[in-house]
This record gives sequence, structure tokens and C-alpha cells, in this order.
Amino acid sequence: MRYSQLFLPTLKETPAEAEVVSHRLMLRAGFIRKLSAGVYTYLPYGLAALRRVEQIVREEMNRAGAQELLMPMVQPADLWKETGRYDKYGPELLRFVDRHERESCLGPTHEEVITDIVRRELHSYRDLPVNFYQIQSKFRDEIRPRFGLMRGREFVMKDAYSFDVSDEQAEASYMKMFEAYRRIFTRCGLNFRAVQADSGAIGGNFSHEFMVLAKTGEDTIVVCTACEYAANMEKAEVRMPATIEVEPMLDTEKVETPGKRKVESVCESLGIPPSRLIKTMIYLADGLPVAVLVRGDREVEEVKLKNLLQVADVELADDKQAFDATGVPTGYIGPVGLGLRVVADQEVALMRNAVTGANQKNYHLKNVNPGRDFQAEAFTDLRQITTDDPCPVCGGCLELTEGIEVGHIFKLGTSYSEKMQAMFQDSDGSEKPFVMGCYGIGVSRVVAAAIEQNHDDNGIIFPVPLAPFKAIILDLDPRDERIDGAAQDLYRGLTAKGIEVLLDDRDERPGAKFKDADLLGIPYRITVGKKYLQDGFVELRERKGGEVEELSPEQLLTVLPPRIAEAINR
Amino acid sequence: MRYSQLFLPTLKETPAEAEVVSHRLMLRAGFIRKLSAGVYTYLPYGLAALRRVEQIVREEMNRAGAQELLMPMVQPADLWKETGRYDKYGPELLRFVDRHERESCLGPTHEEVITDIVRRELHSYRDLPVNFYQIQSKFRDEIRPRFGLMRGREFVMKDAYSFDVSDEQAEASYMKMFEAYRRIFTRCGLNFRAVQADSGAIGGNFSHEFMVLAKTGEDTIVVCTACEYAANMEKAEVRMPATIEVEPMLDTEKVETPGKRKVESVCESLGIPPSRLIKTMIYLADGLPVAVLVRGDREVEEVKLKNLLQVADVELADDKQAFDATGVPTGYIGPVGLGLRVVADQEVALMRNAVTGANQKNYHLKNVNPGRDFQAEAFTDLRQITTDDPCPVCGGCLELTEGIEVGHIFKLGTSYSEKMQAMFQDSDGSEKPFVMGCYGIGVSRVVAAAIEQNHDDNGIIFPVPLAPFKAIILDLDPRDERIDGAAQDLYRGLTAKGIEVLLDDRDERPGAKFKDADLLGIPYRITVGKKYLQDGFVELRERKGGEVEELSPEQLLTVLPPRIAEAINR
Repeated sequence: MRYSQLFLPTLKETPAEAEVVSHRLMLRAGFIRKLSAGVYTYLPYGLAALRRVEQIVREEMNRAGAQELLMPMVQPADLWKETGRYDKYGPELLRFVDRHERESCLGPTHEEVITDIVRRELHSYRDLPVNFYQIQSKFRDEIRPRFGLMRGREFVMKDAYSFDVSDEQAEASYMKMFEAYRRIFTRCGLNFRAVQADSGAIGGNFSHEFMVLAKTGEDTIVVCTACEYAANMEKAEVRMPATIEVEPMLDTEKVETPGKRKVESVCESLGIPPSRLIKTMIYLADGLPVAVLVRGDREVEEVKLKNLLQVADVELADDKQAFDATGVPTGYIGPVGLGLRVVADQEVALMRNAVTGANQKNYHLKNVNPGRDFQAEAFTDLRQITTDDPCPVCGGCLELTEGIEVGHIFKLGTSYSEKMQAMFQDSDGSEKPFVMGCYGIGVSRVVAAAIEQNHDDNGIIFPVPLAPFKAIILDLDPRDERIDGAAQDLYRGLTAKGIEVLLDDRDERPGAKFKDADLLGIPYRITVGKKYLQDGFVELRERKGGEVEELSPEQLLTVLPPRIAEAINR
Repeated sequence: MRYSQLFLPTLKETPAEAEVVSHRLMLRAGFIRKLSAGVYTYLPYGLAALRRVEQIVREEMNRAGAQELLMPMVQPADLWKETGRYDKYGPELLRFVDRHERESCLGPTHEEVITDIVRRELHSYRDLPVNFYQIQSKFRDEIRPRFGLMRGREFVMKDAYSFDVSDEQAEASYMKMFEAYRRIFTRCGLNFRAVQADSGAIGGNFSHEFMVLAKTGEDTIVVCTACEYAANMEKAEVRMPATIEVEPMLDTEKVETPGKRKVESVCESLGIPPSRLIKTMIYLADGLPVAVLVRGDREVEEVKLKNLLQVADVELADDKQAFDATGVPTGYIGPVGLGLRVVADQEVALMRNAVTGANQKNYHLKNVNPGRDFQAEAFTDLRQITTDDPCPVCGGCLELTEGIEVGHIFKLGTSYSEKMQAMFQDSDGSEKPFVMGCYGIGVSRVVAAAIEQNHDDNGIIFPVPLAPFKAIILDLDPRDERIDGAAQDLYRGLTAKGIEVLLDDRDERPGAKFKDADLLGIPYRITVGKKYLQDGFVELRERKGGEVEELSPEQLLTVLPPRIAEAINR
């Protein structure tokens, strides 16, 4: 493509509206333009990048045996009522009535539609397994759309749905998708992790998020440096230590700790490390108080607490709420004789002769022993993981990092099929509900995440597989016959070898061309300028850094295509 | 693809809901399934056909220099208010408010959005011409969706918009699109005509509809058998005869014609042919009466009448309305001394000594001469064309046929750009509005039209370029090792040559396989059965008819690929 023929409006200034780097660069590099809040037009260059991702997704979904179809964007409310989601789904679901007053919605997801098709068309175990996918623009009416394509209202998504005869088969389908997703993000040239998305037992986990690692990620994730383990911070399982030191239990002793309400000050005054103190936190779980115990040097992980208590909401009580619940000022509350629901982190069960609040102002208790001095409804994993914890899978070292969720795979089980009466006849003649799974990729978000992960101060650094053009030729003087001739020849030569090339033939200063080439992030830059007039060399430089190579056009035509092929197939 | 792995649910029964053949066959051949009125899911086979059309459209749009982008489906009402279309567009435009109470709509077309982009991004004549297109699902809330994909509410469309500096440039852009559309429908393998879509002067016509000729077309079109002329019946220009016979004018004479109200009976009683009678029809134009004159053997074309009178609606008056307007019973009305607005078909001006109603019950006038005996506001083309008329372009013979509109190209001029203040600076420094054109193709409708045009009692007969599979191999006995082996070998052999093949490896009776192969419309059918066991031959048959050829597998691998290539590139 000739730049002079391409609508690729780059911006020198950083648009004020953009909060994150991918949004800024997508606006500056002519990927997108905003139509309304969270709604963008993909200009030709942005659409080309999107199509690269789509194509990789499509090839790997097909390879995994999934079949592409295309479901409608406008869906009847009736189906959503069958599963109860029409009422349950929040205002993100855009609802409206059509001209015949039929309730409808713009589908942000298609479980109901695909389940309706399957229940009408597939009736026997012989028809299974099947996995259907589509790539489609979806609309989700986010209350606060932001970050450009990272959290837009209209976005391109690949969604897939599998149907199986049994849990085991569904898990096999799940694993196929797990592998397909790994291949997809690997082929996209991204640094990513598959992250456990719920806290189920290891080995039985059938929900994973695929996270592209990038500083601006919205999620903090825990990653093992030794094995493939990765998890959302809030879901990462903490492993119990393999060996436990047991010391003899001493008698409880009340000590005066006037004005010492904080962990640090209590420990300092008693001359103990925070790991010997049991911290008692009062939470309101759906409004009702509960005491939560963790070691003094740990933090409660509220998502784990919420899951344990099976409530919609947990909130740390303020001083007044805590006093109302316990009759004790904050800082002196403890589990012994508290008279409240108590739940404890599993680590607390291992503590001996610990310090706790004495449930009396200005007093703490020493030598408190769980089991002897107090009980809890549960001793379980309730705290935040730290980089001091071992990997729950291999025991290796953990790191914290930020991630952008670009994919999510999920075993749905029979919840949809049961509600929608989607049944098949099994080999023994019995009627059973389909066992389902669903698998999403935020296609437009992948493009944004790729830029978040791969950029520098000058612009985008496209992973080669996603780059709309693999090389850009800077024709530094289109009015000079020899320079222009060489640039045109190279353009034709590379194009003939199947390379997607952008020829910058614009009537612009060289400086502007260099700047745009960097901004656009095209992996290989070829400069045809004065050097060519002097000694017949053009310059080749990789966008991601490295030396400038001086090559004759013939050498370049020999050297570059295999490098690009290698980068794509890596 | 192996049939056993493909979700391709064929139906033996014709679904009751389907009114036209393409709808019936698309349901039966597993193309689509209905979700709600006019809203369909494309199953894998239907989607594959759609993609074939999309790909041809994309290639030819790119070849013509248009650039692909992707605009949002959800559009803000504000833009539509700038052009006044938010109020003017009927209930086909689905309007709603989002969660922030912002008025929005589901865009059935994108003139406003693209004009908004262009006015913000392009400012100089140097940036022009440009032509942007997208391929996208659109929603139009049809009051009575029907005929499957022929008139659905959600459909896939290619829409393009050109921006030029002047009328001449815009007309050059228009002609490029005209040529691109011709290439597209030719490459799709369709029998089509480009039809003038308004009645503007020949040579200055910048609105064409592309019609696929098929019996079930919704439009009647007039086609020249000698040249490329084609027009919608209602818009087809009638040419004045090249030579006119002039006879001397005789004196007007009132004759009694008791009870003779119809053209036929008047002519019979007076012994003249209907071509010598002037028929006087009373119409209500936006409610006001007007007399319309045509020759006795002609019919008024109401669209032409409406255009002449510049009214929203014309309706033939009933007997009472006609009497109220004229004081004369229907059958005896004539233009002489009528006291009403009179407009006449151009042919009437050439009539001499004609018969008309005498504006008195049971009487007609003989020897009436236009100009001498009555005047009309206009003598112009107001009648339906017939196959007796000459081609208005070349004078050749005309034929009537039915067509399905699959494309429409249109020079918009500056109506949108002026309303939206979309201006550029011309080479002389002056600010001018962009001169626009718009160009649509109903992509999903092309698939339906292809089937309407190409089918028989047994099913679809796909034009080779649109066929998702170019060949189907019927493995008539997958349990027989030799038959199955030969079928599998052929499948691999053809696939390796880049041919899209469906291998029917299902555990079905041969009869069912033959029936499905016909229904699916795959262009080449290869049968591997008993014959192969006997003498090593497989059978090749074209879906569109012809002899069965007996070939060895090796011969088939040599013969078939070039035939398919030829059919695609024809």
C-alpha cells in the first residue's frame, strides 16, 4: 500500500481524552476515532490490526474443531427470560422494544441464542461434542467506558460455546480450548499467562483468564517464576507450610497495653514480631458482623471472605460499627469470649502462645492458643497471598505483576441447559441436559493489550504477527528519480514476495516520515535516501531496537522475507 | 471438511414459514435458522456462502481504490438530527436511550457517521478523492419482514461513501463504483442488470440499481435485448416515435354512446382502435383532483405522474370522487372544457381526430385535437412502457423480466455535507462542501438472490464462485475399506490442490447422500461406490446438469481442479 493512497491520519499531539498508553497511541497512529462514549470507528489501519487478530483466532478455533457461525446482535427478551438473565443482568444489557412492542436487547453474550439453536437441532449423544463460535461486534452499556478499546461499550469479541454429553467430555472440550487459547496468544506474539479464575481445588479448576502482562493492567496477578502457575491476586491460593513448629502452650495472661491499638505498637511494647499477634477484624457481611482473624503481618482477602461466607458483599466495619457489635474499642478486640461469629485464616490455627486483644480497653492477652482458648467456624484460606508465599502448585517463588484480561474460558455445566430445557438422548436412552462451556476473547482488546505491552516513547512496537504492514519503506525524496525508483522497486519486490509493505511516498520531510514510522510501530523500517545515491545502500532497522544495517536492495530482498516469516512463525 | 464433523442440518420437509424458494432452500440446506421475525442465525454453511460474497466484494472494492473501515452499529441521535433524518426516517430506524438517557439508534446506514469523520479529518482538496467502505450487520426494523434473507430486519451489508471535490470528480468516482459492481456480480456468477434508478436525462444518470434476474424478483424491469439498457418498469423512459404521421384536423362532433363507459366498448361502437381514443383518468394528487390523459391502449405510470406533480402520493379517484371533481360520470369524462388541472402523456400530443368523453353522460366527442380543442399543463412521459416500445437508448427490442435488487449506487451531491457543514479547502482557497456518493450491496441478499436464480426442484445450484465447497465426495459405503479408502484419498488429493471439498462420510443410506448433495448445491459431485469396486472408476457429475463421467481417481484429480478454476475465473 502507498501511504499517499491510505487514510492514515497520525497526530503529533497526544489527545487529552486518552488516559492509557494504548488509547493514546491508537488515536495518534490513526487506528480509531471516537463516535460517542466508548464507541469507536476503526479506521483502515486499526481495522487491519483487528483483522490480523481475528484471523489467528479463526485459524486456531477451526484447528481445535470449533465451527464458525454468526448469531444476530438483536435478541428477543423471551430467551433471556428463560434463564432469568433478563432481570438479573444489570443496565449493561441494552434493552428496547421494537416497532411491534416486542422486548429485545443488544446481546452482549449469546448463551441463550446458541442453547436455543442446539436444543432445536441436536437431539442425540451422537451429535456431540460440538463447539460453535462467532466473531462479532457486541455492545455492553458500561456505566463508565474508558481507556479506549480496553473498556469500550461496542467491541469485537470472539465467543464460543461447547456442548458435551458429560462432565468429563466437557472438561476435555475445555482443555482443547485452553490449548487453542495458548496457541492464539502465542501466535499473536504476546507475553501472557493463563490465570486460574476461581479458587476451586487445584486440578479441578475449569475457569481461566488469559492475561497479557502489562504495567497498565487492571488486574494484579500472581505468577510463579518456576512453573506455569498464575492467578488473580484475589483468587490465588495460599499453601499451608509443609513443616510446622510446635511449642508448648503457656497459660493465658492479661497485660496492660494503654493506648496501643495498632499491630506495630502492641508488638513493639510487648517485644514480639507481628507474626505472633492474631489480628481481629470486624467485617459486615451483608450487614451482619463477623470477626475475621489473620496473623498480624497478613491482610484479609475480601474476595475469599465473601466466597466463604456466601454473601453478596463484605465491608470492613468502621470504629462505631465494630463497637456496636462487640462493646470493645477497636484495637483491643480479640477472639477469646467475643460472642460473635468468628472465622479465621488457616495460618491462625498453627499459632501458639499468640497475642490478641483482651476485649477490654487498654488490655491484650498473651499466650492465646486456638482450640484451647477460642474456636472459629472455619480455619481456611482467607488472606492475601504475598511474594513470600510458595507457589501453591510447585512451591517455587512467586512474583506479582499486572495483567490485562483478553480471554476467559469457563465450564458452565448444565445451568443454562437445565433452565432452557436443552436435552439430548444419551447412549442409554436417558434424557440429559447438555454440559456446556463458554470461551471468550476480546478481539479488539487484544489489539489494545498488545500495544500496552509493546511500545516505547516514540510509539507502538507491533509484534510481527499483528502488524498490518510488516515493513515500511521510507522514500526520503520522491522527487529524486533514483531514490524514488529504488524505493518503488523495493516496494514491488517485497510485495511480490508476499510481504505486506507500506511505501511512504508522501511529500513530507524525512523527519516526519521517521516519526510516523516509529509511531505506527511497523516492525521493519527500510530507508532509501542520500546513502543510496552515494553507495547504493538502503538502511534496514528493526522497530524494536538494534543496529541499522546497510544493505543493497538485492541483499534486502533476500534477507528480509525469511526474517519476517520466522518472526511470524516463532 | 468431513460432513460428520460439520453442523449442517438438512431438512427433508419444506418449512411452512418459507414463502419463497431461497428462503425454503436456505432453511432446508442448513444455511440459516430463525431467531425472531426477520432475524436469523447463519449456520456454518450459510456463513461460508456469505463469506464468499464478502471476499469478492472486498477484493473489488480494494481494487477500485476504496478503503475498508468499520463504523459502530450504535449511533448517537445528535448526528442524525444534524441532517434532519432522526425525525424524517420512519420506524425502520430503531431508536432507544442508553443508560445515561442519551438518544441513540441502530444505524441502518452510515452517511452521518462517515461525514462526521471526514469533516474532522480531511480538510484539503489534496486529500481527495476518498472512498470508504465497510461490511457489517445492519438492523432495519421492517414492519413486515419476509422471504428469509430477502427482506430481513438484520442483514449483512456493504456500504461505501465517496467524497470528491467536484461534480465531475464525483461522477468519475461513481463510474468506478459502477465498474466495480459489474465486476462483483459478474465474479459472483450471477445474471444481473444495472438498472437506471431514476428518470433523469440519459447520460446524466447517477443512480443505478443492480438487479439479479429471477422469477421471484420484487421489481419488474425492462431490459433491452440489443444494448445494455435496463430500467425499473416504473422508471423506464418511453421514447417518442421517430416519425409522426400527421392527418388533417376534422371538426369536433358529439356522438351518442349510451352505456359505453369502457375503452373497449366505446371503440367497438365507434369502429376505431383504442389507439385513437384519449383516456381521461381522474387522480387525487395529495388529495386534489387532476385529470391525466393517455392513449386508450396505454396505462398511466403512477410513479412518473407523482414525480411530475411533485406530490407525496397519487391515487386513482373512485367513481364518486371523480364525479365530485368533474360533475360527470366515469366513462364520459374528457379534457375538452373540463375545468380541472390536466396533464397528458407525450403521446397524446401527437394524436389527431381522437375520441374522448364529452363530459356528458352517454356522449363522446369525435375528432378532438390537442392544442386546438384542449390544453394541458404538460405533455410528457406519463405512461407505462411496453414491450412494443423501442429501447430508449438504442431503439432495440425490449423485454420485461423480474429482478432482485442487490446493489444500489447513488450520487448524493452535497446534501449531507451542506447540512453537516463538511467542508474542504479547494485549490483556489475557497471552502466547498464535499460532493458525495453512496454505494450499497446487500451481501446476505446476494446469497438469497443467487439461490433464487440458480436452483431446481432438488435444491440449490450454486454458482461456483459462491459455493462454500466446490466438490462433494459421496463415500457410499464408509464401512467398506476399499471404497472408504478411495474416498479419503480423493479428499486428501483434492484438498492438497487447494479445492474446498466436503467428504460425505456419514453413516447414511446412499439415497440420503445423493439427495443432500443436490439440496446443498455443491457444483461437482464425486461418487465412490460399487463401480469403484468393479472397475476402479468414480463418477463425476456437475450439479447444474449434464452427463455422468466415469473416471479413475487419478484422472479426476487431473481433470477437476482446472475446471473449477475456470468456472471461478470465468
